[in-house]
Amino acid sequence: MPDFAEPLARLITEFKHLPGIGQKSAQRLAFHVLRAGREDAQRLAQALLDVKDKLGLCQVCNNISDSQICQYCRDEQRDQKMICVVEEPHNIIGIETTRQYQGLYHVLHGALSPLRAIGPEQLKIKSLVERIGAGRVEEVILATNPNVEGEATAVYLSKLLKPLGVKVTRIAMGIPVGSDLEFADEVTMWKSLEGRREL
Amino acid sequence: MPDFAEPLARLITEFKHLPGIGQKSAQRLAFHVLRAGREDAQRLAQALLDVKDKLGLCQVCNNISDSQICQYCRDEQRDQKMICVVEEPHNIIGIETTRQYQGLYHVLHGALSPLRAIGPEQLKIKSLVERIGAGRVEEVILATNPNVEGEATAVYLSKLLKPLGVKVTRIAMGIPVGSDLEFADEVTMWKSLEGRREL
Repeated sequence: MPDFAEPLARLITEFKHLPGIGQKSAQRLAFHVLRAGREDAQRLAQALLDVKDKLGLCQVCNNISDSQICQYCRDEQRDQKMICVVEEPHNIIGIETTRQYQGLYHVLHGALSPLRAIGPEQLKIKSLVERIGAGRVEEVILATNPNVEGEATAVYLSKLLKPLGVKVTRIAMGIPVGSDLEFADEVTMWKSLEGRREL
Repeated sequence: MPDFAEPLARLITEFKHLPGIGQKSAQRLAFHVLRAGREDAQRLAQALLDVKDKLGLCQVCNNISDSQICQYCRDEQRDQKMICVVEEPHNIIGIETTRQYQGLYHVLHGALSPLRAIGPEQLKIKSLVERIGAGRVEEVILATNPNVEGEATAVYLSKLLKPLGVKVTRIAMGIPVGSDLEFADEVTMWKSLEGRREL
């Protein structure tokens, strides 16, 4: 590895801490910053700090927000009878881009994982139960990830919430649209068969 | 596009200004920063500013440096009789990783490009001529890019420097090592034939 000047080497190291950025990408980004104006670097630096300083969690759904109540919880046009439960705030983005879902959200901030010592107490489950206890909610959609932790969390929540008298549903698993059956793994294929719908 | 909280949207926008970072990558990086500790964001922000504030150009070769004379120009172990001319500071990294070249460098900070109004005056050519005029240099290797601008710059420098009594060479173009003849374009193939060496 060639010797970079210290500030440059440090910036490369910091970029490498970001996900999906390896040595070569980090070098390219650092040299870009070097070429760009000081005000560009200043704006990125300020944006980094503002994200840490100005954002908090919504007091209702635990989504990221720059106010005490997030935009979705504030919006009275949205269907107050549905709550979609997700693991992380960025999962909301994927659902919002469909422009189809008009209900509310609840962010767990993780999934159950005995291996990583994450139990129900580490997740935002208590506030979810309280929201349902308030009585307006009719359906809870469990949109945790389709992996072991996400499935376990969905099963746990389902057992916890059903006795409260709400409908509990799970997002469908199957072949991705635009994909080819050939590339589907056996579990996905099975889920796709199992979840078949009459035409 | 879903509505992000303002500081988050701003960080995503700033990340998108970096090369090779699109909307999805920018979102992923921004959400990573959001999850990471404040001190991590602080370190990256500081590194960004330090690169702009603490680095300048080497007074001899115009490489990026945190001192007036860069590490390569300072190093008396290096071959003072050779100068390798490159377009950008990051080109030096590629050459240094070979661990084979032991001479000095000269960074032009660009290549001749009439379309972008970059003429000889916009490049660090005057100081190169002065270095050669000092009399210690015996060979100048032109390692500008193998594209139109880089070639034009190499031809221009060759005509300018040869009358000064130095040997002027150009890096070899040809089939990349580990590649396959099948994938070579016709110009590369021709350069490879033209540059053939006796075994």
